[in-house]
Amino acid sequence: MVNMADVARLAGVSMATASRALSDHPHVAPATRARVLDAAAELAYVVSPEASRLAGGVTDRIAVVVPHLSRWFFGALLDGLESVLREADKDLLIYHVGDAADRKSFFERLPARRKVDAVVVLGMPIARPERERLEMMGVHIVAAGGQIEPYPFVSIDDMVAGRQAVNHLLFLGHRRIAMIATNDPGQPGWPIRAGRSRAYHAALADAGLPADPDLAVTVPWGGAAGAEAMAELLSLREPPTAVYAHSDEVALGAIRTIRRAGLRVPEDISVIGIDDHPLAELTDLTTVAQPVRDQGALAGQVVLGLLSGAATDPGITMATRLVVRGSTGPPRVA
Amino acid sequence: MVNMADVARLAGVSMATASRALSDHPHVAPATRARVLDAAAELAYVVSPEASRLAGGVTDRIAVVVPHLSRWFFGALLDGLESVLREADKDLLIYHVGDAADRKSFFERLPARRKVDAVVVLGMPIARPERERLEMMGVHIVAAGGQIEPYPFVSIDDMVAGRQAVNHLLFLGHRRIAMIATNDPGQPGWPIRAGRSRAYHAALADAGLPADPDLAVTVPWGGAAGAEAMAELLSLREPPTAVYAHSDEVALGAIRTIRRAGLRVPEDISVIGIDDHPLAELTDLTTVAQPVRDQGALAGQVVLGLLSGAATDPGITMATRLVVRGSTGPPRVA
Repeated sequence: MVNMADVARLAGVSMATASRALSDHPHVAPATRARVLDAAAELAYVVSPEASRLAGGVTDRIAVVVPHLSRWFFGALLDGLESVLREADKDLLIYHVGDAADRKSFFERLPARRKVDAVVVLGMPIARPERERLEMMGVHIVAAGGQIEPYPFVSIDDMVAGRQAVNHLLFLGHRRIAMIATNDPGQPGWPIRAGRSRAYHAALADAGLPADPDLAVTVPWGGAAGAEAMAELLSLREPPTAVYAHSDEVALGAIRTIRRAGLRVPEDISVIGIDDHPLAELTDLTTVAQPVRDQGALAGQVVLGLLSGAATDPGITMATRLVVRGSTGPPRVA
Repeated sequence: MVNMADVARLAGVSMATASRALSDHPHVAPATRARVLDAAAELAYVVSPEASRLAGGVTDRIAVVVPHLSRWFFGALLDGLESVLREADKDLLIYHVGDAADRKSFFERLPARRKVDAVVVLGMPIARPERERLEMMGVHIVAAGGQIEPYPFVSIDDMVAGRQAVNHLLFLGHRRIAMIATNDPGQPGWPIRAGRSRAYHAALADAGLPADPDLAVTVPWGGAAGAEAMAELLSLREPPTAVYAHSDEVALGAIRTIRRAGLRVPEDISVIGIDDHPLAELTDLTTVAQPVRDQGALAGQVVLGLLSGAATDPGITMATRLVVRGSTGPPRVA
């Protein structure tokens, strides 16, 4: 069992300084604090939650861990979460973990600085070693816009959302349906939204359609990548008559490529997304809508419930729904 | 001069409790703290910066005040700001002031809770009484994505950006040019982006064109409002041949209405925006690009400079540039 003396020794400071640095005392030079935190991270030192509670207790601060700040989905989650927590007079601390290095440093340093009452993770999967670091903090953990076993979460069911999208294309009569799945280049190796891919394969299998690996493309998230993925699909000898994209922004990129090729949406190729991004309505994009702001707000209520000691739902799954607009229609009769 | 005894009396608590509540001490019941903060706000009580510094000193926390969390512009500013402040091991506290009530409560309570070393205000004007409350905190104040006299700022020049947009339409030969300006329904009465409107009027005057008040429409910010504004312009006996929108999302709304009316962009009506929103490239929108993430990052550097006692630029104005895409062209020959 590592104790504070070990941390002080490794950092080359006195016990008193190590204690001050770890308890976030103001009169510690930033460089010294950083050295102590690094030592604590290296030794996986954990501030005893008991001791910490005696020393500090309620901070009225909630940490929000978010992989992207400038994307609509995460902004809308944050918007909903903030509205509920502000009402309860909590402060939100934002931790943006944009890439693997950020992520590593965030989770390594986390347990040593118990500055918050709860951690909310927005739309981001968490690996087992990271979960262990989170748990060392001894604070409540909630996932919003995604699921992290075994914590309480507020999310949609990606499998259901994906089925709604692909079923709509099947119902319209499409038989050659492509999927543009997305991953996160900042967090390589993460199966982002795996349910949306499983839904595609399951829906095609249920419809008795053959699996054609050429029709399932995975690209980094974003409109430009969606445009490139669509070009790849148009380079096939027999391109799809319909495209299911994992998000609206990716779908809009695909539509640009289709139009640049001189083809019409939906007469030549139908396109459907997931999200109901604010621009989906403006661009007449058929999509599966999810309540993003509400997921954030409900997660805020889950946090407040946990802090007040109330029993909490292990998970809240919010409904998604098909929004039919002008980017989908029946395939042309061959 | 109001002192802490007055606050304690009004809140109906002891001096010790008032002091603990105001210094953010953990062992104060939330209801009691709220009562003390309300009393402090009512009396405009100010924690003496001197006393506060002795008691607390450096918090390593920066407050970010933001009017919208789910819009790209504010998310991108926050992204840049966070990247620089995280690097310096600062924590970001987010304060979302969405409407007039939020705003009032935020600024009233602000001086009584000195929990941060600096306040960064993102793309939002601040009224004189609010500035006074901010100044009572005795901390550094920086504006990003907009200007607030007399504080250091990082922004674009709205007058220059607006001129670049309107000059491009004039150069293409347009003489009947409309403007869709935007305001913020959550913050009524604020002259949002007044420079972008002044630029329009000045550019037309310089070109010797008459001012037609029917051609200048102001709507709440957003794509749907842009669509409605365009409908209003199409109800004129002589609609414009070109439209200058204060932001890309508004421009995309205008384009939807033009297309729904069976008209072509740019053959029948040209449209230009400001921002270079990520979807502008995908939708082939001509725009005036501004470096949004960089404004946030530079503002973070300004904050760090102020905290280290370095002399700081009174203001940093970043360059904007015309990006020509497919939504603008010469007017049809009548």
